[in-house]
Amino acid sequence: MTQKQFQATIRELKTLKLGMYNTDFLLTWERSDEEIKAVVLVAELFKEMHKAGISIRSFDTGLAISIFRDKSTRTRFSFASAVNALGLGLSELDEEKSQIAHGETVRETATMISFLTETIGIRDDMFLGEGNKYMREVGAAIQEGFEKGVLHRRPSVVNLQCDVDHPTQALADLMQLKSHFGSLEGLRGKNIAMTWAYSPSYGKPLSVPQGIIGLMTRFGMNVSLAYPKGYDLIRDVIEVAKKNASRNGGSFKIVDSMEEAFKSADVVYPKSWAPYQVMQRRTALLRKSDKAGLVELEKECLANNARYKTWECDERRMGLTSKGSALYMHCLPADISGVSCTEGEVSKDVFERYRLATYAEAGFKPFVIAAIIFLTRIDKPVQALKELANKKKTTYHG
Amino acid sequence: MTQKQFQATIRELKTLKLGMYNTDFLLTWERSDEEIKAVVLVAELFKEMHKAGISIRSFDTGLAISIFRDKSTRTRFSFASAVNALGLGLSELDEEKSQIAHGETVRETATMISFLTETIGIRDDMFLGEGNKYMREVGAAIQEGFEKGVLHRRPSVVNLQCDVDHPTQALADLMQLKSHFGSLEGLRGKNIAMTWAYSPSYGKPLSVPQGIIGLMTRFGMNVSLAYPKGYDLIRDVIEVAKKNASRNGGSFKIVDSMEEAFKSADVVYPKSWAPYQVMQRRTALLRKSDKAGLVELEKECLANNARYKTWECDERRMGLTSKGSALYMHCLPADISGVSCTEGEVSKDVFERYRLATYAEAGFKPFVIAAIIFLTRIDKPVQALKELANKKKTTYHG
Amino acid sequence: MTQKQFQATIRELKTLKLGMYNTDFLLTWERSDEEIKAVVLVAELFKEMHKAGISIRSFDTGLAISIFRDKSTRTRFSFASAVNALGLGLSELDEEKSQIAHGETVRETATMISFLTETIGIRDDMFLGEGNKYMREVGAAIQEGFEKGVLHRRPSVVNLQCDVDHPTQALADLMQLKSHFGSLEGLRGKNIAMTWAYSPSYGKPLSVPQGIIGLMTRFGMNVSLAYPKGYDLIRDVIEVAKKNASRNGGSFKIVDSMEEAFKSADVVYPKSWAPYQVMQRRTALLRKSDKAGLVELEKECLANNARYKTWECDERRMGLTSKGSALYMHCLPADISGVSCTEGEVSKDVFERYRLATYAEAGFKPFVIAAIIFLTRIDKPVQALKELANKKKTTYHG
Repeated sequence: MTQKQFQATIRELKTLKLGMYNTDFLLTWERSDEEIKAVVLVAELFKEMHKAGISIRSFDTGLAISIFRDKSTRTRFSFASAVNALGLGLSELDEEKSQIAHGETVRETATMISFLTETIGIRDDMFLGEGNKYMREVGAAIQEGFEKGVLHRRPSVVNLQCDVDHPTQALADLMQLKSHFGSLEGLRGKNIAMTWAYSPSYGKPLSVPQGIIGLMTRFGMNVSLAYPKGYDLIRDVIEVAKKNASRNGGSFKIVDSMEEAFKSADVVYPKSWAPYQVMQRRTALLRKSDKAGLVELEKECLANNARYKTWECDERRMGLTSKGSALYMHCLPADISGVSCTEGEVSKDVFERYRLATYAEAGFKPFVIAAIIFLTRIDKPVQALKELANKKKTTYHG
Repeated sequence: MTQKQFQATIRELKTLKLGMYNTDFLLTWERSDEEIKAVVLVAELFKEMHKAGISIRSFDTGLAISIFRDKSTRTRFSFASAVNALGLGLSELDEEKSQIAHGETVRETATMISFLTETIGIRDDMFLGEGNKYMREVGAAIQEGFEKGVLHRRPSVVNLQCDVDHPTQALADLMQLKSHFGSLEGLRGKNIAMTWAYSPSYGKPLSVPQGIIGLMTRFGMNVSLAYPKGYDLIRDVIEVAKKNASRNGGSFKIVDSMEEAFKSADVVYPKSWAPYQVMQRRTALLRKSDKAGLVELEKECLANNARYKTWECDERRMGLTSKGSALYMHCLPADISGVSCTEGEVSKDVFERYRLATYAEAGFKPFVIAAIIFLTRIDKPVQALKELANKKKTTYHG
Repeated sequence: MTQKQFQATIRELKTLKLGMYNTDFLLTWERSDEEIKAVVLVAELFKEMHKAGISIRSFDTGLAISIFRDKSTRTRFSFASAVNALGLGLSELDEEKSQIAHGETVRETATMISFLTETIGIRDDMFLGEGNKYMREVGAAIQEGFEKGVLHRRPSVVNLQCDVDHPTQALADLMQLKSHFGSLEGLRGKNIAMTWAYSPSYGKPLSVPQGIIGLMTRFGMNVSLAYPKGYDLIRDVIEVAKKNASRNGGSFKIVDSMEEAFKSADVVYPKSWAPYQVMQRRTALLRKSDKAGLVELEKECLANNARYKTWECDERRMGLTSKGSALYMHCLPADISGVSCTEGEVSKDVFERYRLATYAEAGFKPFVIAAIIFLTRIDKPVQALKELANKKKTTYHG
């Protein structure tokens, strides 16, 4: 990034009206277009600074807490990387995984861990109707503590994936698209196919496809959501996608054929998920700890999945896309036929062709998380960015 | 905190004779009144500096190690917050929880983890006669390593709760009292009721009530310890409380009625614990891994507890206190009737009235821990504090 | 360390031709003599600086990741200490311990955790033929990511013990020898006995004896490897030792008697290990999760071990060494007869006499690890060291 580009970014940032300081970041569609743009701009800046070896450390001390109610490697390390780069110390809150704590316990615990804390990243995507709700409970507790003077500062809650949205993934994907098409304006009129794909596992969360249709419909893209009958997403998010599309001059449609979605697509995002209705039944069973019921449900769902083994992103289907060369996207790990499973979401040759592209896509995430923390915790972000850039403190010596 | 207040605190600190550098902090009653005052003053200063966004980072690098031989969220995060604010990196030593390592193993391990370490926080409160002993073994090993030149610096062992005392909790409670009554002098003549309360669980450690009677008797308070027959504390600590009271112009008495202790109390601290004798039997059973015996003991104890369900801090009893408005204290989490259990230590309405006060009470703990580490690891604390204040490095940018 | 000594070290470092930047550190015998010397010199410098309270922090931010595929306390804390002292934040990757991940998964995961990472320390010593291979897979994945622009920087993989070598231990041992004999030149002609010793456990890795014979044969030492029939090491490493000895003017021989190795020894390193062939069978059984087979193998091996209970380092055998006062070495923890077991590797009196010496030996390891990370991640190490020394930033205030 040249000095000129840096200045241009700073100038653009200055024009944006932001209300992110001292708030949580839970759903992209709760955030204005200007705030989404600000996250992207700051994340780009941070990425360029890191590449140039310039420190983005914005805190001298302070804790960042992560709460993972589901296993995670990628998001865990993205968060660890982001908070470290900002100068925060990471502490993980290790709850009993099966337990859904609510009410008094959440309110108290949220305060107890927040006395010297700047941000709390939460992943809670297993229970439909629970994850996002839990994040809001944590946010409300912190807000009360801050208002009543129990907390000196107000940590921001960052959604690292819930039952509704996966905003840091969707924003990393948006950066990948911006990088691919040259600008956010370049997304206008482009066709993206968010499609279900076969996987020999079940219970995958809905948050990635929901995050994609909730975010990409804001930039004038034509979004096709494709899935076999029954693999519905949450109704509210479908409404968000429709409203976004009509407001922003793009389109949103649901089709029941992978081929139809791939036709003339500029971007394809083939990814498995469990039907909304299954996730509801699963949540009820998990709540009751009904192991036999869970085994039964898994069996039923895998059998149902198996009816759609043909939903694979292979070379033939890629050939249907615009000029036969759509950008393939995935949040990783993908179920790759003949590599990580016998039959999966994507054929071996297609994946290998785009493997490094998916790595690059993932590489945006630490910077997205850092940008969100920065914008929710730093009162005057433009000034702080200029200070960082002026200091030009290298991340290492020598 | 104004510049004037800061100067006054520094002046007061300068008058105190301290012998804390290169020592451990294990029991409040091993520490002089001046040292206790210094901890409180430094903790207050750190709290005010944090509130003002001034960094208290006192180390460029260095490890802080925590050893938790019992589950913990509050103390774990208090320690994590404190060491992070001071600039240390946290590493947790994860032992097999059931194992009581002693002798050679402790001596060697303590040295092996200490080569670049500044402090070791230990929580070990499950085994009567073991926790404090273990901390002393660690301290002795470190002392030998330091004297023999194997260790460049001497990490301090900080008691994060043992079988005898819970000094960081008691000191946080002392800060809450100082804040409530305006000064340490203001505690003189005030009545505090440390009373047992009913809980539907058993095996709660004795360290909190012991810590309270061991510390608050030093400030001229009238301390009433109330519990049902048989719920005795460790005899040695009772002796400490008696001696403290007679030396410092306060009083200490033991009564067997919650009402009697509450009468005219300025402060009440209703909290469940297991009888000393039960803890002894439990320790023997745990040592033998006698699961059947433990189940039997638990049954017996819960039945015994149940005879004292009326020991609840409710509005009627609060009405007995001074002007009906004593300060309610708790180390959290409290067993709240109708909230976290059917019948517990405190009624829902009393707790809700003091909920934020208990949060504030807990909020002192990270700063108490930071102050103890600072005073045991920094040779010239007054000079270091002045440097921190002069630097006025903010904890964050923007 | 005086200013003069510092200058001499810097001058010596300047003369060394190094190719360590942006590479992994996996086996000492893949590294030139100059690189080995550089690690020792930088580690010594770091140790002296730490002793003097001068910060060796070389990074403003950045992650260090550890992957422990086997339990560890000493190496875990050495790594934690080293990365903290350098200014890096530690994140542990917690894999399923039993799982040997390879291929696609390793390649992808290695990239995903490396976006803002400076170094990855790996311990993987359970499976013969696997540990070192796995480290190379991680290194290759990172190299690809770096070359293809997915990673801005290239983290170095540091071998924290594998099936073949334990380079950070062997280098700490080399520093202990240098300290004992005054210089690396002082090692020339000295006799070191690396001998098997009895232990009532089985399955101990081969990496320590292999690391010792692979490294100490490079400095003109006369290395005697002693073990009972059948307790062979990996053939390739024996060849490395032979070649090293013939190239460097020392000697290497294998004997089957502890006494013979001890005769006129200046240094003894008595330490148990499992026969190479047993480790092969064990790896096969572990791979099949054949529990019955593993129990059977353990029984057989313990019975075989028991035939060599006389292989104990006791005062009588120590009397055979040069002037009866050879330096006793051990990587710890040792199996001490009458202390940690009934009959073990070393008698109680011998160990106690050298206990603090073994602690000092272990004390080199954090600095060895720091030096390796520094030299593999800092492009111009001499310049960076001068900057650190000029800054004279203390590790703590006051």
